[in-house]
Amino acid sequence: MRVEHDLLGDHEVPDGAYYGVHTARALDNFPITGTPISRHPELIVALACVKLAAARANRRLGLLSAERADAIEAACREITAGRWHDQFVVDVIQGGAGTSTNMNANEVIANRALELLGQRRGDYLHVHPLEHVNLGQSTNDVYPTAVKVAVQFAVHRLHVAMTELKGAFAERALEFGGHLKMGRTQLQDAVPMTLGQEFGSYAVMVGEDADRLREAGQLLAEINLGGTAIGTGLNAHSEYARLACEELSAATELPLVTATNLVEATQDVGAFVQLSGVLKRTAVKLSKICNDLRLLSSGPRAGLGEINLPAVQAGSSIMPGKVNPVIPEVVNQVAFEVVGNDVAISMAAEAGQLQLNAFEPIIAHSLFESLSHLTAACDTLRTRCVVGITANVAHMKAMVDRSIGLVTALNRYIGYEAATRLATDALTADADICSLVLDRGLLTASELEAIMEPETLTGPWRDAGGDTYSRPSG
Amino acid sequence: MRVEHDLLGDHEVPDGAYYGVHTARALDNFPITGTPISRHPELIVALACVKLAAARANRRLGLLSAERADAIEAACREITAGRWHDQFVVDVIQGGAGTSTNMNANEVIANRALELLGQRRGDYLHVHPLEHVNLGQSTNDVYPTAVKVAVQFAVHRLHVAMTELKGAFAERALEFGGHLKMGRTQLQDAVPMTLGQEFGSYAVMVGEDADRLREAGQLLAEINLGGTAIGTGLNAHSEYARLACEELSAATELPLVTATNLVEATQDVGAFVQLSGVLKRTAVKLSKICNDLRLLSSGPRAGLGEINLPAVQAGSSIMPGKVNPVIPEVVNQVAFEVVGNDVAISMAAEAGQLQLNAFEPIIAHSLFESLSHLTAACDTLRTRCVVGITANVAHMKAMVDRSIGLVTALNRYIGYEAATRLATDALTADADICSLVLDRGLLTASELEAIMEPETLTGPWRDAGGDTYSRPSG
Amino acid sequence: MRVEHDLLGDHEVPDGAYYGVHTARALDNFPITGTPISRHPELIVALACVKLAAARANRRLGLLSAERADAIEAACREITAGRWHDQFVVDVIQGGAGTSTNMNANEVIANRALELLGQRRGDYLHVHPLEHVNLGQSTNDVYPTAVKVAVQFAVHRLHVAMTELKGAFAERALEFGGHLKMGRTQLQDAVPMTLGQEFGSYAVMVGEDADRLREAGQLLAEINLGGTAIGTGLNAHSEYARLACEELSAATELPLVTATNLVEATQDVGAFVQLSGVLKRTAVKLSKICNDLRLLSSGPRAGLGEINLPAVQAGSSIMPGKVNPVIPEVVNQVAFEVVGNDVAISMAAEAGQLQLNAFEPIIAHSLFESLSHLTAACDTLRTRCVVGITANVAHMKAMVDRSIGLVTALNRYIGYEAATRLATDALTADADICSLVLDRGLLTASELEAIMEPETLTGPWRDAGGDTYSRPSG
Amino acid sequence: MRVEHDLLGDHEVPDGAYYGVHTARALDNFPITGTPISRHPELIVALACVKLAAARANRRLGLLSAERADAIEAACREITAGRWHDQFVVDVIQGGAGTSTNMNANEVIANRALELLGQRRGDYLHVHPLEHVNLGQSTNDVYPTAVKVAVQFAVHRLHVAMTELKGAFAERALEFGGHLKMGRTQLQDAVPMTLGQEFGSYAVMVGEDADRLREAGQLLAEINLGGTAIGTGLNAHSEYARLACEELSAATELPLVTATNLVEATQDVGAFVQLSGVLKRTAVKLSKICNDLRLLSSGPRAGLGEINLPAVQAGSSIMPGKVNPVIPEVVNQVAFEVVGNDVAISMAAEAGQLQLNAFEPIIAHSLFESLSHLTAACDTLRTRCVVGITANVAHMKAMVDRSIGLVTALNRYIGYEAATRLATDALTADADICSLVLDRGLLTASELEAIMEPETLTGPWRDAGGDTYSRPSG
Repeated sequence: MRVEHDLLGDHEVPDGAYYGVHTARALDNFPITGTPISRHPELIVALACVKLAAARANRRLGLLSAERADAIEAACREITAGRWHDQFVVDVIQGGAGTSTNMNANEVIANRALELLGQRRGDYLHVHPLEHVNLGQSTNDVYPTAVKVAVQFAVHRLHVAMTELKGAFAERALEFGGHLKMGRTQLQDAVPMTLGQEFGSYAVMVGEDADRLREAGQLLAEINLGGTAIGTGLNAHSEYARLACEELSAATELPLVTATNLVEATQDVGAFVQLSGVLKRTAVKLSKICNDLRLLSSGPRAGLGEINLPAVQAGSSIMPGKVNPVIPEVVNQVAFEVVGNDVAISMAAEAGQLQLNAFEPIIAHSLFESLSHLTAACDTLRTRCVVGITANVAHMKAMVDRSIGLVTALNRYIGYEAATRLATDALTADADICSLVLDRGLLTASELEAIMEPETLTGPWRDAGGDTYSRPSG
Repeated sequence: MRVEHDLLGDHEVPDGAYYGVHTARALDNFPITGTPISRHPELIVALACVKLAAARANRRLGLLSAERADAIEAACREITAGRWHDQFVVDVIQGGAGTSTNMNANEVIANRALELLGQRRGDYLHVHPLEHVNLGQSTNDVYPTAVKVAVQFAVHRLHVAMTELKGAFAERALEFGGHLKMGRTQLQDAVPMTLGQEFGSYAVMVGEDADRLREAGQLLAEINLGGTAIGTGLNAHSEYARLACEELSAATELPLVTATNLVEATQDVGAFVQLSGVLKRTAVKLSKICNDLRLLSSGPRAGLGEINLPAVQAGSSIMPGKVNPVIPEVVNQVAFEVVGNDVAISMAAEAGQLQLNAFEPIIAHSLFESLSHLTAACDTLRTRCVVGITANVAHMKAMVDRSIGLVTALNRYIGYEAATRLATDALTADADICSLVLDRGLLTASELEAIMEPETLTGPWRDAGGDTYSRPSG
Repeated sequence: MRVEHDLLGDHEVPDGAYYGVHTARALDNFPITGTPISRHPELIVALACVKLAAARANRRLGLLSAERADAIEAACREITAGRWHDQFVVDVIQGGAGTSTNMNANEVIANRALELLGQRRGDYLHVHPLEHVNLGQSTNDVYPTAVKVAVQFAVHRLHVAMTELKGAFAERALEFGGHLKMGRTQLQDAVPMTLGQEFGSYAVMVGEDADRLREAGQLLAEINLGGTAIGTGLNAHSEYARLACEELSAATELPLVTATNLVEATQDVGAFVQLSGVLKRTAVKLSKICNDLRLLSSGPRAGLGEINLPAVQAGSSIMPGKVNPVIPEVVNQVAFEVVGNDVAISMAAEAGQLQLNAFEPIIAHSLFESLSHLTAACDTLRTRCVVGITANVAHMKAMVDRSIGLVTALNRYIGYEAATRLATDALTADADICSLVLDRGLLTASELEAIMEPETLTGPWRDAGGDTYSRPSG
Repeated sequence: MRVEHDLLGDHEVPDGAYYGVHTARALDNFPITGTPISRHPELIVALACVKLAAARANRRLGLLSAERADAIEAACREITAGRWHDQFVVDVIQGGAGTSTNMNANEVIANRALELLGQRRGDYLHVHPLEHVNLGQSTNDVYPTAVKVAVQFAVHRLHVAMTELKGAFAERALEFGGHLKMGRTQLQDAVPMTLGQEFGSYAVMVGEDADRLREAGQLLAEINLGGTAIGTGLNAHSEYARLACEELSAATELPLVTATNLVEATQDVGAFVQLSGVLKRTAVKLSKICNDLRLLSSGPRAGLGEINLPAVQAGSSIMPGKVNPVIPEVVNQVAFEVVGNDVAISMAAEAGQLQLNAFEPIIAHSLFESLSHLTAACDTLRTRCVVGITANVAHMKAMVDRSIGLVTALNRYIGYEAATRLATDALTADADICSLVLDRGLLTASELEAIMEPETLTGPWRDAGGDTYSRPSG
């Protein structure tokens, strides 16, 4: 153990630790979840990028010596490369508006920089966590900036996963294009459609959500680095914000911009709330799709049985041969979690007071969980379910043929009220619509056949010459 | 128009109005929803009960003259009888922790009392809204007390509705007792059960929720009347709390008690949060049941088609003959609203600061909406849906006979692994389990018949002499 | 009473009613909230616009006679002008995916058209609610389209209210520009700022939310009119979707477009979820601002007391002279409601199954409530609070002078560790920072004065010649 | 690697693993959170208790040989003692309604039992995960039962933490008993109280929540063990449910009972929803208390400054000497998370279909997280904050003396309207209430002094002989 010191006095730190006294106190104070911030590697990388950018900006302003700046930058680059993440130990749920996370980063970087300079850990005269690593910074600009950068990394990963999932649905749609099936509204038989149309909808849905995600992600490009404690920029050089943003854009390869009003940007978490709202949208839509997949594959004998999901594990410890839709089910659960996280984020956002939102750590943690779980859910859904879905073509067709819903296609020829009687009679007599139509001589067989063509049944009608059955102007 | 006066100066009040200046200002200040507090008649009645109880307590303490007390009491009794509710005009969403609601009550009662005494409205020397009607009281004890009383009234109505709904399900369960059908887990065919067992579950579910509701309602018996502004009882006589509670219990026929710690009781809204949590429980359970009803009645041709919900309206403006499960659907939506209300209530509860929760109006409004909508939903579900549900007995039985799930019943005789092979083979060969068992000579016809008896299939096995098929100790 | 007929048989309708049998059944089926859909006038107007556009499109396609089309259009124009709203009587919470709302519109328009043609109400041969008013339509494309149009109307109103609120904050910011005060993070004294900076933040916040609202509103321009029952367009003419969209854009003066994939557009409620997410964002930000206003105006003697909100009503029925922040409080409560509505909307969106979301009525109702309450909240906040806020300039300045937070401004001159000691000493000795600095000779009076200039304290430092106190490169 | 086999074919399992093929497939299928179920040790222990109880019941029924039963029991006891938790590796968020968790338990216990019997892992002839460890069971009764047991363990821990926290508040209340301070409603100065009363409220609040928690926990005593797949008990001996419950009660030392209706109990998650509702209640109340603590300790110079929270870490990386209320802040964030979890649980509960809720894993995970984080939050709040809180007695008293709120105490003597004028004048003239009263001769000095006695100011008035100032009957 080595001893470090802060305004509260001495505190022991494990000798091998790269973190220092502030981190050690945070470990004492926040034994909440047992999950360290390294749970979210994007955040650790983003913190290192911010510290690197700050060091480079300060060096350019003549505020940090080349030697120190070099050491700090080298330490940061090791972290972005994946090293020392195990030294980021403070709890994901922490008080202090992220101060402990920032202190953890300052200390790890300072100690590693010291080491690179041939100094001992804890010997902060040469590289000080606050005087040098944190120079011109405050938790209140460093932490929100790092979170925004990290979230953008995570948004990008989710966007890729969603785009691939969209592709998988589109591929199924193409394959299922010609298979006729009953469309259902309110779980009641409606009118025919193709399975390709059904899966095509899912592709469009996921694609639209991906577009919205990208847009929400772009709102995170606006950072408050340089605002220091409350956005007034006190203690930062007047050129620092510009330079730090330039350096951070370079380090992260993200098109970052400094907020026009730094006081507002320091206290505002609107972009996180917006993103969470979009993640919630994505979640409920994915859940809807998975509900459908589970419904369409219900059975195998006493359900709808239109499609088959790939079997990925035994479904029951008691029912032999049972296979369950476990992949959609896990996606549903991620969706519920994401909606819950959105509420937590909303409450945390609402609770921010005056010049800072003290509750950004739970906002960040919840966002990272939502993003990474959704990414995993999309990947799992695609690779272990969607790509292997097959259709029960004959069964679907048989249900269409027996369906009362076919009567809707006759509306134009016999009117809503007559069609209603036909539907009621068919249901009562356990008869087919088409048989009844022919029995009653309402249409000829060839007329009926034309109406019941799949293309006719699954699209609007065309005013072509052949369309002689349409009634005169109503 | 008449002119009244308060600390801000003069303000006009419509001449015919029983309310006064404080109410008039509230109308100016809170043009939010356009919905007046008379939307919740229980609250108006409860307010009148509180004012009546206070007047009687004050009279007994010698603080209010008999003449004034009589007039105030008479006015209150008219309100509890249903009169003057149209004079309770302030918005359901209002700032001020209910002050405007209390003022509205004080003013209506004072003016009506004045009228009963032969005085002019607005001539407050004889009966003053604050000096007399509100004597010994504060909004901060009157309003929470009135809300608690009103909520108990509403809880009682919901409890009745739930108990009747439970009865309707129990009746269906009795009628459907013998009908065999497939049980389903995760939307996949599981093992057989009876439709009576299914509906019996719904009866139990609703019954348990009703029990929880009753318990949560009982927590509302604890009131803070007598605590005045912050629970210290400043300005109230030391005997007032006891007497007022006694009178309020009598007036409401509810077993009310004064909270032990009035400072706590004045700021605490825990009992409302608890109740809302129970309403949310009720909501998600009702929604689950309605989801099931919609699922089981899906079809008529391309769905599960096990039960039929009564047709209550045409289902579609385009699809003739379509009938939709509109009653369960409206219950689902009430459920979603109740869950949303619970979040609003949670946030409002969390936001209470120091000695008072300023946000009780939205808590009260949300609770009343949840309670009355759930009551209506239960009644509608019972009278327009559950009582008329019928079963498609033959269809259900046919699905059981074709089911792979029957194989589970063979576990005990042939083991999980052999049963798994049987299930897989039946699925692949599109064959029935029973046929395969006989074909392969795994069991004799009579053995199989015994196993497939409905009672055997839908309950645990008994160690009777006849049970010769059970395997030896594993 | 007149008698009308549908697939369930006869049903009485009040003789004077413009609605018919389908509406009458809906009134029987959904006695849930007692609130009719006319609660949301934008929806009634939008429905009329859709029906008008459909009639015009059908006339252009030769499917509707000029006489009928004229009568229908005339009836619709009366409704958009504000007539007959009282005939839109079905409950805001209803089963059937909006069918009852669509039927209500069809019937009112048909009966009014009949009347205009000199026919009797209920005599549907001449103008039929389904055959003519609903021609080529389904609830499933009419209702979502009408809701999208109506929501855009409501979004516009909220956007105006937010823009005006932003203006009011900006005006206060300008007025308060020069007043120095303590900035606070985590409710602890941080560093100085101006009250203008504080109010400027609110202006920016509201403005950014208004921008997000506008963007979310634009997503609603995509409609599914022409998709009919499930988006395949069955029963609609192939040119109908294009013409109807063109006519609806003209009627509403909104730049509407037909969705590329109508099957997806019919079942998808993503744009509503997105909008609700943005409303929730707006809500939590407004609530945050109101929390701040309440905090900054706390007192008058035992609080922060930096600003004064205008007194708008007496604050207490027991505490004379008390004035409460009732306007911010009512805004807080609207915010809680909006967050709750967002959860209800999320659940309803998630619950949509297969080709339609049956729960759009609760989505629509919740959105309209959120939109109109937020609009009212913004207007009330602006007119009855923000415009009248005044500052306690001397008190704010005194708090800055006594503040420990001033020490942060010395960081650059004496270092973080020395500054920490100074802060601790000042606190312990109940001393001022500036006095201690001078007593200890850390800086000269003129140096200190320069550092303590308001402009210096509330912005970054500039590398001007005069900045001789900056320490050498760290 | 060893190779195991299931209905899908062969799959490799790490040679050293105690889990088997079903677990291995679950690892492939659910790479969602990376957090294994061993995150929740109570669940692992509870699973072992259930398996132990089942083995004992089956042995008593003659269905399991003594040798196998002994080995299984021994393996279970090792797990309850804390061994092999690292073998419970499936993801906390998983599809399949807990099947993978149950399979994981079956496999680890079977393999450890095999080892204890001197057999090789994977050689399931001697002890089979399904035929023996899972004998007479289904995931659908094992998993909910285990979760209920585990949750009761966790509820007990939270109850202890809350009781201790209540004690800490009560102790502060005792210590702070006599210190006069301003009570505040709506953040505006109200009437005086003591700091003891304030902290006493917190003690009562936490105590009441602890009572509600205990009650909610008791609802979990009802288990569905013996219901097997869907609650009908298929494949279980008719005496099994009774014996298994008896054994499980013994193993867990919990008073468990078998549900009366097992079909209902198998699909119902009401008790979890109820508990989550109560945890949410606890969360919002804890958050309210922490908001108050942060508010009361705001400052040190520009805030309310009534109390001091112990300094536990440096508050800022830029502001020297700043100390923040980080402990209350972390509790706030846990509260937000718990409210979010409640929404996730509600959605999962609502989504359960027919005979089973497939989404219990997310319900269980969310509950365990809420329970353990709340427990940690209570402990941290108590040990690192509440016990060290100190009061600024003189400052509080000075604020009372200057307060306008004192005027309320004069209501009884001079009336509401006169008191209102006094309050307004005092505010305008920046004067003290008491000075004005004396200046104007409204009361004598000794009368005023009596009224301003702390005991008089902080409680109701007593009708003693000395109370000569009370006005005659109103």
